[in-house]
Amino acid sequence: MRVYLAGPDVFLPDAAGRSARLKAICTAHGLTGIFPLDTTESIPDAWRALPEARFIALCNEAHIQGCDAMIANLTPFRGPSADAGTVFEIGYMRALGRPIYGWSNDPADFLARSTTFTGAVPDAAGERRDGEGMLLEAFGMHDNLMIDGAILASGGAIFTANPSPHARWSDLSAFTRCVAALAG
Amino acid sequence: MRVYLAGPDVFLPDAAGRSARLKAICTAHGLTGIFPLDTTESIPDAWRALPEARFIALCNEAHIQGCDAMIANLTPFRGPSADAGTVFEIGYMRALGRPIYGWSNDPADFLARSTTFTGAVPDAAGERRDGEGMLLEAFGMHDNLMIDGAILASGGAIFTANPSPHARWSDLSAFTRCVAALAG
Repeated sequence: MRVYLAGPDVFLPDAAGRSARLKAICTAHGLTGIFPLDTTESIPDAWRALPEARFIALCNEAHIQGCDAMIANLTPFRGPSADAGTVFEIGYMRALGRPIYGWSNDPADFLARSTTFTGAVPDAAGERRDGEGMLLEAFGMHDNLMIDGAILASGGAIFTANPSPHARWSDLSAFTRCVAALAG
Repeated sequence: MRVYLAGPDVFLPDAAGRSARLKAICTAHGLTGIFPLDTTESIPDAWRALPEARFIALCNEAHIQGCDAMIANLTPFRGPSADAGTVFEIGYMRALGRPIYGWSNDPADFLARSTTFTGAVPDAAGERRDGEGMLLEAFGMHDNLMIDGAILASGGAIFTANPSPHARWSDLSAFTRCVAALAG
């Protein structure tokens, strides 16, 4: 089974090393991990004339199309939610109807993280709004309800860990739980 | 043509009023706007047994499936990127292969916003990394390359406006440009 390894892991200083570590865990469970930076097998000539960013986007879409499942790193990235590219890819895979698992090294729920980020306090109705009046979601989900909803509806699950801050981008225990669940 | 109106607009204090304003602009251009909070036409009985957040997620997925195109509000939301729910929906629609337009009331590019958010400074190689060593994308795109790439590959476009801060969530000039482009 081919598994697309979505996440901001591509932005790590040693992205190649990270790719190798994630793939080794997949291999140990009988799965084939596909990292976003992997070479795409068949690339239409027209793509090569595009700006690099658009070329990368199309290659990643092709990777997802060629995978049977996805494991997504939902560790919050520059705000209360997961990395935008990862979230896009979850939506893409969800429309394909294949299983999606998520993992995060921040066990706090979305409301807690959004509250910390915005400083919102409950109003008389118990709702929280940010400084611009925008409501905070309060459903007890890990992230925006579209993300949790899609993962659960796809047959997947979300696993979290709570490593110390310095291990935020190195602890792979929650990732490993995703791999084991998908392989099981 | 039915158009799904993705965005954090659902979190506005007067989300119903916002829905009406967006739909009126669509109607004036011969399009039918579908707002996430609209009632879904046919709901399987099994969905009603789910927690509310999961029910909403499935209804929104059904809305997207029932639309011919999407117009997404990409105005940055609690961080440098667009709202996570909106980004998920862009990914979903992209996998369906239908046109997606994006609009934003922040004309700064993704690198500029990410730099402001993280305080990153260029290193000797000219790259910028945040306090955790994670690279900042530097492609001149409006947001993460998956978002811009998908919108452009779908045949759509991104329009921006630069309203004063108090009009950040009320200025609809960039939205109107999306509607006109899609209707044209």
